[in-house]
Amino acid sequence: MGGKLSVVGTVPLDSARNLSIAYTPGVARVSSAIAADPAMAATHTWASRLVVVVSDGTAVLGLGDIGPRAALPVMEGKSALFKSFAGLDSIPLVLDTTDVDEIVETLVRLRPSFGAVNLEDVSAPRCFELERKLIAALDCPVMHDDQHGTAIVVLAALRGAAAALSRDLARLRVVVSGAGAAGAACTEILLVAGIGDVTVLDSRGIIHPARTDLNPTKRALAVRTNPTGRTGGLAEALTGADVFLGLSSGQVSEGAVAGMAPDAIVLALSNPTPEIHPELACRYASVVATGRSDFPNQINNVLAFPGVFRGALDSGARRITGAMKLAAADAIVAVAAEHLSTTRIVPSPLDPRVAPAVAAAVAAAAVAEGVAGG
Amino acid sequence: MGGKLSVVGTVPLDSARNLSIAYTPGVARVSSAIAADPAMAATHTWASRLVVVVSDGTAVLGLGDIGPRAALPVMEGKSALFKSFAGLDSIPLVLDTTDVDEIVETLVRLRPSFGAVNLEDVSAPRCFELERKLIAALDCPVMHDDQHGTAIVVLAALRGAAAALSRDLARLRVVVSGAGAAGAACTEILLVAGIGDVTVLDSRGIIHPARTDLNPTKRALAVRTNPTGRTGGLAEALTGADVFLGLSSGQVSEGAVAGMAPDAIVLALSNPTPEIHPELACRYASVVATGRSDFPNQINNVLAFPGVFRGALDSGARRITGAMKLAAADAIVAVAAEHLSTTRIVPSPLDPRVAPAVAAAVAAAAVAEGVAGG
Repeated sequence: MGGKLSVVGTVPLDSARNLSIAYTPGVARVSSAIAADPAMAATHTWASRLVVVVSDGTAVLGLGDIGPRAALPVMEGKSALFKSFAGLDSIPLVLDTTDVDEIVETLVRLRPSFGAVNLEDVSAPRCFELERKLIAALDCPVMHDDQHGTAIVVLAALRGAAAALSRDLARLRVVVSGAGAAGAACTEILLVAGIGDVTVLDSRGIIHPARTDLNPTKRALAVRTNPTGRTGGLAEALTGADVFLGLSSGQVSEGAVAGMAPDAIVLALSNPTPEIHPELACRYASVVATGRSDFPNQINNVLAFPGVFRGALDSGARRITGAMKLAAADAIVAVAAEHLSTTRIVPSPLDPRVAPAVAAAVAAAAVAEGVAGG
Repeated sequence: MGGKLSVVGTVPLDSARNLSIAYTPGVARVSSAIAADPAMAATHTWASRLVVVVSDGTAVLGLGDIGPRAALPVMEGKSALFKSFAGLDSIPLVLDTTDVDEIVETLVRLRPSFGAVNLEDVSAPRCFELERKLIAALDCPVMHDDQHGTAIVVLAALRGAAAALSRDLARLRVVVSGAGAAGAACTEILLVAGIGDVTVLDSRGIIHPARTDLNPTKRALAVRTNPTGRTGGLAEALTGADVFLGLSSGQVSEGAVAGMAPDAIVLALSNPTPEIHPELACRYASVVATGRSDFPNQINNVLAFPGVFRGALDSGARRITGAMKLAAADAIVAVAAEHLSTTRIVPSPLDPRVAPAVAAAVAAAAVAEGVAGG
């Protein structure tokens, strides 16, 4: 039968004795112990280490609003990755509502069942409100991976690219194409990481304060980005730019990329079709990365989310902070460091060292920030 | 770490190719196919065969209202049994609300995530309203196991006991001690199975129409049971009775059991402490059964629920009907038939033949009743 997941018992049920331990009457002792001391739930149930992968199916991959049933295969895949890369149990929960407050209410009611929430494939700008309200309502790690998982990996990739080119990250002029979930979060982490000149574009062009068609997230971006007041489209934005970060399904012309500064970096992350073919981009850029596994420099969220959640849960963190995300990016870069080159700015998504390194760094950052558990 | 469950991937993720099939970009093809034809979800996700084990923790084993966190170990054990006995994937969901309508609403929102609902350890009389509303709201099998799983196994046990004693089931006079979830459902199935004389007691004694302290469920029982108008307590009810069915945590005195008819049947199912010790009951009764694994005739719901849900899901049933429950009981009896005796009225809970036999019978009954899927 279909699907990519299986739930298995971790204790044998092949004798009357084992059956009575795993189920009645033996399980009564475990339940009584937790009733007497709720902290025992952390060590005697799976909840404290269980990640729920939650989606309403409104922005599934590049497919758009295809609904919760069609989104489920993606969530099953994500749960499989959590186990495979970070040893975390995870279950997909797809919701037949797109109302932000109903989704929050549903997860609040389910709170005793899980230890962390991985939001996935929720459309912008709803995803910003949903994540904010979930973080406020739940005393556990919550992360919208399309935002922050992408941002962590993009920061790691830019750090790797800058190092491979012996350039100063903070002095790069970055153009972000796409102001949805990933665009907003990537811009945020790049600003926090010290990059001073970031310009963001949505489907109507460069975002600047004079535009009257901006939602609140884009209005906030307009204030914090585009320090030299550029207007126009991708070609104008990319003229003389050091970095193209593609996070939309739109295309970028060869001419626009040709107008970038020397030693340019192109991260064309639209999936499965990059904003520009990597072989074409290589003619003008010194570093080219995509989401594809059949070209060098594959940028994949799996470099971040398994280790981020593992580190957050290992440390008993009540939330995932900005410092924990920066630590995750640094840990990814560190794994790539010894073999760094312009065609290897990040580790392979299959590198088994990444998730443990990210987890350790995230847990340490949680402790340092004082958000770790008892 | 704690817990009795693990979620594992069913496809390897050890190569870039496998990763791209299980996750992006390959999974996009599966999601697109389901978006185009929702029926594809049945074969390309795990949802259609996933049982959610749902509890609010208000009536956990004999421990009472200990809350969702303390209930979780029981639900984990149940999920492990679903896999071990019926090959079904199952996840526990414990809810931080005891409001019936909120629980219904939560499961309606989660509907695309699962294929069936096993309600567990919800207090009476709320459990009756909750199950009724869930069945009305969801187009999938819903069963409160403490009610119907118990009823199926009790009917099988009584059929087995009657056969072992060469007695006519329909002519047995049955006394049910306990009018909670299990008591109400057992009474219902025994009446449907043709037993004409059933008397039910709650903690205040025999239920009869003149009592003014009855909730709606008990008022309904008062109308349909106790045909000879008995009043009083357990001793009065058991005088001359053929069957004692203990489904409460109360005790029954040796004297009361001594007053039963010759060839009496005692099912003392309170767990872990039977209403009367089986060695004591054996002095007066020809058949004695308990929930304990260390005495003959262990009556355990695991004889029923794995096969019931497996049969319902295999047949695509939209609900679990009375005929499907009767078929399940008959299937359990049939497995025991070849070695039937007064110390073996049901198969062992570990007998691997039971769940497949129950599943086949339940699926056939679903088809016969016209509730099976296309």
